[in-house]
Amino acid sequence: MSSTAIITCKAAVAWGAGEALVIEEVEVDPPKPMEIRVKVISTALCRSDITQWESKAFPHLYPRIFGHEASGIVESVGEGVEEFKEGDHVLTLFIGECMKCKHCTSGKSNMCQVLGLERTGVMHSDKTTRFSLRGKPIYHYCAVSSFSEYTVVHSGCAVKINPAAPLEKICLLSCGVAAGLGAAWRVADISKGSTVVIFGLGTVGLSVAQGAKLRGASQIIGVDINPEKFEKGKAFGVTKFINPNDCNEPVQQIIKRITDGGADYTFECIGDPGMITTALQSCCDGWGLTVTLGVPKLKPEIVAHCALLLSGRTLTGSMLGGWKPKSDLPKLVDMYLNKEIQIDEYVTHDLPFTEINKAFDLMREGKSLRCVIHMPK
Amino acid sequence: MSSTAIITCKAAVAWGAGEALVIEEVEVDPPKPMEIRVKVISTALCRSDITQWESKAFPHLYPRIFGHEASGIVESVGEGVEEFKEGDHVLTLFIGECMKCKHCTSGKSNMCQVLGLERTGVMHSDKTTRFSLRGKPIYHYCAVSSFSEYTVVHSGCAVKINPAAPLEKICLLSCGVAAGLGAAWRVADISKGSTVVIFGLGTVGLSVAQGAKLRGASQIIGVDINPEKFEKGKAFGVTKFINPNDCNEPVQQIIKRITDGGADYTFECIGDPGMITTALQSCCDGWGLTVTLGVPKLKPEIVAHCALLLSGRTLTGSMLGGWKPKSDLPKLVDMYLNKEIQIDEYVTHDLPFTEINKAFDLMREGKSLRCVIHMPK
Repeated sequence: MSSTAIITCKAAVAWGAGEALVIEEVEVDPPKPMEIRVKVISTALCRSDITQWESKAFPHLYPRIFGHEASGIVESVGEGVEEFKEGDHVLTLFIGECMKCKHCTSGKSNMCQVLGLERTGVMHSDKTTRFSLRGKPIYHYCAVSSFSEYTVVHSGCAVKINPAAPLEKICLLSCGVAAGLGAAWRVADISKGSTVVIFGLGTVGLSVAQGAKLRGASQIIGVDINPEKFEKGKAFGVTKFINPNDCNEPVQQIIKRITDGGADYTFECIGDPGMITTALQSCCDGWGLTVTLGVPKLKPEIVAHCALLLSGRTLTGSMLGGWKPKSDLPKLVDMYLNKEIQIDEYVTHDLPFTEINKAFDLMREGKSLRCVIHMPK
Repeated sequence: MSSTAIITCKAAVAWGAGEALVIEEVEVDPPKPMEIRVKVISTALCRSDITQWESKAFPHLYPRIFGHEASGIVESVGEGVEEFKEGDHVLTLFIGECMKCKHCTSGKSNMCQVLGLERTGVMHSDKTTRFSLRGKPIYHYCAVSSFSEYTVVHSGCAVKINPAAPLEKICLLSCGVAAGLGAAWRVADISKGSTVVIFGLGTVGLSVAQGAKLRGASQIIGVDINPEKFEKGKAFGVTKFINPNDCNEPVQQIIKRITDGGADYTFECIGDPGMITTALQSCCDGWGLTVTLGVPKLKPEIVAHCALLLSGRTLTGSMLGGWKPKSDLPKLVDMYLNKEIQIDEYVTHDLPFTEINKAFDLMREGKSLRCVIHMPK
């Protein structure tokens, strides 16, 4: 069904970098050709929302609506959309798929050249926004902007899922949990009996842990400066916990000792480039693999000694765990429904939309894994 | 046959870093248990010999005998050696295989924990030397030291080859040519139709080119500041040449343009960590792979922006092209005998042992690919 009506709804608007969000009545345009308008049901707060919101680098992209990890129901579809119809349950995609470009057709990349990560606060198709407030545009975030009761996304930036899945849980498969599982399964392809080290036990890191456990890793070492993460980590498979603040020697030395020369796989899930170096030093010669997942907050430069590579280590990275979202995320949803993967356990807080700023506070204070924000019914 | 006799022979001794080699009469001990003494037939000069010889970092390792890319004939074997006998034709190995450690038995690493790269100028087994001059020890290099008429190596640091192979040519398979072919075939596993960029068209880089050509790469772009390398490169498959000194924009921009967004594979064969960054920037999102092969001369730190990895690039490296030398190098020798790979074309100069310093000069001046030094008959 094609829609031409503007919707007026509540959205959490950031008026400036690091400023508390303000719930405003905004206008949401109808979807343009090949776009869909989605009634957001649940949206989780991901650390990268905060990283971008804290950054002073883009003052011109405000006012802005953040949020990129969400589930919802299609409200209306724009001209030419055949993949979706009103009422479909969807996950939003911060990296979409046009299904036609070199990357989409390659079978080996999720870096769509048309609907890839959008950084300029607008829609991919026409470089304008679908939100406005008192006639002025409000910028998007990652072409998703799920901190709104309704949002418009390109039809390539959403994926239809099994309607039996609880939207208030599986929104985590739109980014964090999928990213960690994909890093473990698709990028690293962790093998049974191997040793794994995870730097940063947030939702992404603990999803790597879950992925490693399900693959039968023999040791899953979690590294985090928050001592509370150990108990949480055990539930997802972490077998040993290292708090660098409690150590008298560099973490990589400890890891090399307990893994007989270095781990098979190490994962950086913090967004600290210095920790990528540590992760590379913590994996073994010959076949050690370091996967970087964290979006860096500050200086985004990795520094590593050549010899770490010459001796056979590999450094790679991924977005959304390397998954091809249109085909892979529905499968993860089904795995959840079949109780093959855990998601609920990452949700530490359920908050109504009106308390969205509390979610920001909790995550900045390291008190949450995932806060799920529930939109008004 | 076990030998107990000391051999007196000529060796090119470096008395200090960067000092011209002096041909001296040295004493070569008989092989200790599990070692073999080899009559060196031909030894090529590799850039890493020069890098180490120029380095001021190890003044205590002189006098020293360099050389690690060589062919020879077994003169005698030490106690317990069953793999070799007098008269066997061999290639020396700067990274050996004990066949027992975690890495040797893994099937996925050539970083032997027992006979790996030796950096302290002695033999792996007992940390002493087998060379002496007027009663004083002379240090080894990479536990090979082939700039001598005779040398002693661990039996794990040599591999028996088809005696039909011309030793004066196939010595190049002991390091340079094998490293390049392995990087192309074993590490990168270049696929037909792909695009390849090679930074540095020395013997290693041109061996990557040969490997890429034999795999059917569609574009093989060579980058070098020496304009003479283009003609040489064509013979090994280079289809386009870029001289950064002739360019008004960064090389990576040019490469991205002519490869539609970046190459499938890029190889750093210079030993310039800054060029590793350029190589990473020159490969494509999603599946771009950068392989680093060059041994750095100066500051060995790679600096790279996280986003290069998050967008799906992979950075790896290898020694000796990732080959398991004991099993793989004899196969490369046979491929050469079957005319499936070229080696002769890398030899730009054949020099008698007495002119070894000329080989150093030629390579430092960028006038040679491989100088092969032939020992007296």
